[in-house]
Formats: sequence, C-alpha cells, structure tokens
Amino acid sequence: MNPGAKLLGRYLDELAQVTDEPGKLTRTFLSPAMGRANARVSEWMVAAGLATRIDATGNLIGRLECAGNPRAKTLLLGSHLDTVRDAGRFDGALGVLLPIVALAELRRRKVALPFAVEVLGFSEEEGVRFASAYLGSKGYSGQLRAADLRFSDAAGITVRAALEAISGAPFVLPKSAHRARDLLGYIEVHIEQGPVLEAKKLPVGVVTAIAGQTRAKLVFHGHAGHAGTTPMNLRRDALAGAAEFTLAAEALARRTPGLVATVGTISVAPGAANVIPAEAAFSLDLRHPRDAVRRSALRQLRATAARITRRRKLAFTWTTTQDNAAVACAPALTAALAAGVRAVQGRSLALPSGAGHDAVVMSALTPVAMLFVRSRAGLSHHPDEFSSPADLGVALDVVVDLLARLARSPSL
Amino acid sequence: MNPGAKLLGRYLDELAQVTDEPGKLTRTFLSPAMGRANARVSEWMVAAGLATRIDATGNLIGRLECAGNPRAKTLLLGSHLDTVRDAGRFDGALGVLLPIVALAELRRRKVALPFAVEVLGFSEEEGVRFASAYLGSKGYSGQLRAADLRFSDAAGITVRAALEAISGAPFVLPKSAHRARDLLGYIEVHIEQGPVLEAKKLPVGVVTAIAGQTRAKLVFHGHAGHAGTTPMNLRRDALAGAAEFTLAAEALARRTPGLVATVGTISVAPGAANVIPAEAAFSLDLRHPRDAVRRSALRQLRATAARITRRRKLAFTWTTTQDNAAVACAPALTAALAAGVRAVQGRSLALPSGAGHDAVVMSALTPVAMLFVRSRAGLSHHPDEFSSPADLGVALDVVVDLLARLARSPSL
Repeated sequence: MNPGAKLLGRYLDELAQVTDEPGKLTRTFLSPAMGRANARVSEWMVAAGLATRIDATGNLIGRLECAGNPRAKTLLLGSHLDTVRDAGRFDGALGVLLPIVALAELRRRKVALPFAVEVLGFSEEEGVRFASAYLGSKGYSGQLRAADLRFSDAAGITVRAALEAISGAPFVLPKSAHRARDLLGYIEVHIEQGPVLEAKKLPVGVVTAIAGQTRAKLVFHGHAGHAGTTPMNLRRDALAGAAEFTLAAEALARRTPGLVATVGTISVAPGAANVIPAEAAFSLDLRHPRDAVRRSALRQLRATAARITRRRKLAFTWTTTQDNAAVACAPALTAALAAGVRAVQGRSLALPSGAGHDAVVMSALTPVAMLFVRSRAGLSHHPDEFSSPADLGVALDVVVDLLARLARSPSL
Repeated sequence: MNPGAKLLGRYLDELAQVTDEPGKLTRTFLSPAMGRANARVSEWMVAAGLATRIDATGNLIGRLECAGNPRAKTLLLGSHLDTVRDAGRFDGALGVLLPIVALAELRRRKVALPFAVEVLGFSEEEGVRFASAYLGSKGYSGQLRAADLRFSDAAGITVRAALEAISGAPFVLPKSAHRARDLLGYIEVHIEQGPVLEAKKLPVGVVTAIAGQTRAKLVFHGHAGHAGTTPMNLRRDALAGAAEFTLAAEALARRTPGLVATVGTISVAPGAANVIPAEAAFSLDLRHPRDAVRRSALRQLRATAARITRRRKLAFTWTTTQDNAAVACAPALTAALAAGVRAVQGRSLALPSGAGHDAVVMSALTPVAMLFVRSRAGLSHHPDEFSSPADLGVALDVVVDLLARLARSPSL
C-alpha cells in the first residue's frame, strides 16, 4: 500500500475518536467535538502545506496558493466534518482528509499546481442538530438565508444563537467565499453508501448526478382521549393517521422505480400508554434522480395526507424543510475524474447518487464532480460503515492522478 | 346548591393547584407535590373528624372509628391522589374528597354510623412515573410484590429506592391493611371519563363491571440504512412494521364490539430524518368488559405482530406490563348504591367502566362498587376535564344517602 493510504487510514481512525458522545461517534454543528475536530484537521492541513482558517459558518478551510500566480483560479475539494448520531468514520471525513493527503503526496513529488486549491471541511451537512442540512456549504457559498438561522435545536437554541455563541459577535449572513469565475470547480470524494460498486466489484466510481431530495416535517393533529372509555368510532387518533401515511408513502415508493421514501422520525403527544395520541409529528424524506418524478410523488403524498386527515377528522401541517433539485455533475470535471479512475483501476463506472451531498449546494456556485468509494454492504450512517484500506488507496491514487492531470491541463 | 357541594368544589379547586409542574396539574407517585397534597387533604380529613396516617406505600388514610364498637367492620371509600401529566382536576381527587365532605355532612346531621369508615387517598394509580399502575392500592391491600419494586422511572430510580428515600428505612412489602372479613366493602366515586351519562342526560350512574385491561410494550427490530441509497425492496424498516401493527390493532378493535385498542406511545431509533428506523418501540393498551374477548384479541394481535415482522424480516419482543381481568361490581353494595341514585336523581343507569380504577385492585380484598359522575364531552386526562357543580352535588347526595342507608341496615 502506498504510504499516503496508510496516513489517510491513521487520520480517519484518529478523527473517529473525536466525538460528543463517549462510546460512539457523534459530531454535530458547532458542538465541542466539532471544535476539536477542526483543530486537529487544521494541524494536518498545515502539515500538508495549507494555510487554514475557520469561516463565519464554522467551516474549516485549508488553502494552498498557486506559487507565483496570485490571480490563479481555485480548485475546491472537500466534504463535511459533522456526522449523524452513532455514525461511521468515513461519511464526510473521507472527502476532507483524502485531499489533504493527496496534496501532501504531490508536495512530496514536488508537483507544482498551476492553480490554487482549497480543502473544505464543512461544518454541517447531516441536518442532525437543526433538522436543516447543508448549513456549512450554504454559508461557504453565500446561500445561507435569514430563514435558515431561525431553526431551533432540541434545546431551543436557534442557528443564529449557536453561531453567535461561538463567535461572540452578531452573525452577518456571509457572502460567497469566491466569485464563480475565480473557481475551477468542486470535487467531493465520498463513500457510496449504497450497494452498486460492491455488486460491480469496483473500488471507486464516478457520479453522474445526485438525486433530488425533499424533506418535510408533518404534524397530524387529532384529539386526546381516554384509551379505555373512548369508543373506536369516536376517536381522532393522530398516530393512527400517521401510521396510514407512513404505509402510503412506502407503497408509493415501492411502485415507483427509483423513488425512495422514508419516515425516519416520529413522536406523539401526550405520549402515554393510556391516552389516545392528540398529535403525531414525523419526518418525510423523498428522493429521485428525476425531479419530475419526485414532484409528482410529492403532490400525491400531500393529497394522501389531506385525504387521510379528512377521513379521520384530523388536521395537518406540512412544512417543507429542504428541497433540492437533482444535480447533474459537470461533464468536463467528471470526464477528467473518469480518466483518473481508468488510469488507476482500469475501468470507470458511472452511477447516480441517491444521497445528497455538499456537492448539491456547491453546484450553484461552480461545476461539481464526485468520486464514490465502495461501501461494504452499502452500509452508512452506522458504526459498521466500512471502506477497505485498499479501496481508499485507489481513491487516493485517483485524486492524485486527477490533480497531476489538471496540473498539466488546467482548463476545464 | 347544598353547602357540602360548595365545600367539595373548593377542595377540588385548591387541590388542583398542588402540582409538580407550574402552569399545569401533574402529581406523580411520591413526588414533592404528592407530599403537599397529602398534607392538605389530611387537614380536611381531620376537620371532618377523621384520624389520619400515611402508610408504607405513601397512601393517605383517614379513619373514623365506630363510636362504642371497636370490633365493628370497616367501610372503605376512596380513589387516588396522583394524576397524569397535565391532568384535569377531577380524576382521582373527586373520589377522595367527596367522601370527606359526605362524612362531614353526616357529622353535621349527627348521624352515627354503626361501622368504621376509612377514606383512602391512594398514592399511585395512573402509572405515570414507573409505567406500572395501582402501586398505591396494591400496597394498601397487601398485593405489592417484589417485582413491582424493580420498575425504574425516567431517572433510573426504582420503586424501592423511591419508597426508601421517603421513609428513610428499608422497605418491607406491606401486608393488607385489613382482613377481608373485617371489611364491608370499597366504594369509589369517579368521573365517567366517557360519553354515556352525557348522552343519557344523567348526572350519575352505577358501574356494573370494570373492563379487563392488558398493557404491553412492543419493540420491532429492523436495520438502519441510508434513506437515500437503500432501495425500497432491501429495507427492514421497523417503523413501517409498527405502522402496520398500529392499523391492524385499530381495525380489530373497530370490528369487535366493545373492544378498544390504543397505541399511545411510540419512539424510533436512531431517529433521524435520513435514516431508516432500526427500532420502533410502542405501547399497546387493550380493553374489553369480557375477558374471553380480550384474550382472543390479544392472541390475534400477537399473531399479527409475528406475521408482520416475519414478512418484513424484522424481529420483535412483546412484554406484557399489566394484565387485569374484568371485575364485576358486588351485587349487594351496587344495589345499595343504585337505591341511593334512584332516591336522588329518580332513575339509576347501570354502565360498564372502560377505564381501570383502584376498585380493580381492591376487588381482590373486598366487594367493590363504583359511582360514575357525568364528564363533559367524555373528556379526561386533560385540563379541560369537567364535571358540573350540580352533578357533583348529586354525587355527594347519593353518597350521603348511601351512608345513611347503610347506617340503618349495615349488613350487605
């Protein structure tokens, strides 16, 4: 194995120890562990020759200037450093740490890049703390809006208050870190989190497009009542309505090729075994690579919610918390990446991404490309998430090859 | 309105202010507010001529000896002083306070009872703190078992530890407060918590039987997965399985006359919008006045849980946390009560109780009878729970009449 791959493995192992919850890996937006992670990754960036800073949204940025050309364009590489609760060690972290190791390797080889590079460790992508994702890349790319700052975490702290507590100063919505014309593009390395590369027996693949995604928070409102004395026909049970909706969303996704629908959270009030639920609040996550299919599914599910609640004499609210169109990866950057993949593993596979990534947000600023690394059993968002050292080595070689390739022909 | 009814209203109002949660009424087993409630109700008992004590399980007991006959039998009247969270002011409290006012009224009328009376304020009936109900009446009647002491509250404190923290001494399982042969019976006045008396336009009614009740905690175990990358046909979604069970329980109850089935709590893990639920834990509450019907429904729902989880490649656990047979009220005591109802409101209505009550536990010790008071909209376990002062006055008159009637003919 090349020494860079060993270093990358060490970095991943060490970062996996930086957590807010002892015994499991959890790092959320602006948490104490995020501060420690930024500090440690910053040291590794500095060791690779990068100058580091934290921006207003808590993103860690490592920059390598283009020697002798202060007006050179910038290539961005990165992903996020936050995690889900009880996470694996690769999701996000890999896309931040691998470019650091790749740049260290190029420095070792004395390859001078004819462009500047920024390695980005976004502060928030998973949407765990505020149920609103991509806060980091939105802040970096100037897409954060006042509405984003009003979300509250479980303790009632708003995004704005959390940011101001860290900085000690009033938060001002940041402008984009770059003008589009100063950028070459954004490249994100990420584990596949799905079963395709494993099935094809390939270490890495190149992403063609990222599925569009809608997240919504639904609340069904009924009426509390005594579980023993309220006859079935007089009930207005919010949870029974939510159960019906959950199964309807599942059934729609099952009969619509490529559509996935998930109810991942649910809570009821009052929440006692002997009281009929007056309220059921739950999440809906809906994705498809084609926006038209996703939008049609959304319309159908809204109608389903209306029909179920009408029939059951419930009321409902539907709050769309996230709505991202499908993103096509940039042809030129993706072709360069595919050339690197062919050079390293002989064959390049193109595949869509069912998961959203920071590349979705970054695509509004600059062309994006993504490299996927094989995930064992397609598993992610779980401590057993695993990509082999050999596969990580292939991904590292591809990025080193790509940067060297771009160094020879930087016009994309 | 008779002056007793006004006093009863004042007692109910004042007791409703004694709470563990400012702004709402919540009193749970052995909580600070329960201590204050016991102290205040004890003062009212003393004012009515009762001698008071707190027993080992935290029950408040007010006793009126039979003048001149230390070997006279004892009639018990009572209910519970704990509440659900954000409760109404009548559930439980009414059945403790009304007998106090009734005894004060008899004293005012100089009616000497040829038996002793105990008014019981049970320390726990709702099952809020330990998810195990009837701890108070079980303790009073000698039915508390070592297993009951091992339940833990949300803070991890066991029933035993909570009891010992109050008493400062090791807790010994108490014997029954009375031998069965020394008792005349147990009478509980309670709001109906259902719609029947309102529909019949009657202030009070006499209970024929209390529905049998089973409570269980179910956990469906599936597998976490990424909401964007896990195809629908590869999912093992614990929440979707729980949703299917919830609707199956509802459907069975709807087609089975008299059966009520409720899923009142549910929680999922990991519990993130973009992660397929690996685990769904939820409650089931099942009741019917006939035990055979309830047992048949239980068997069907267990088979349903097995079928759903098998088809969805889930596992499940089913833990029965409570199982109470239906209780028939005692004919003689109930007839005496019905005679009182007829004397006061002209007509007596017999109705079953869908809710469990302390009378369920007390029926193992002594014959029981229950008087229901009309509930507005059948509502209970809610701050809007309401029984009118006029209806409370009728109930008070019925109990005074019953005691006077028993004074004339105490052999039941």
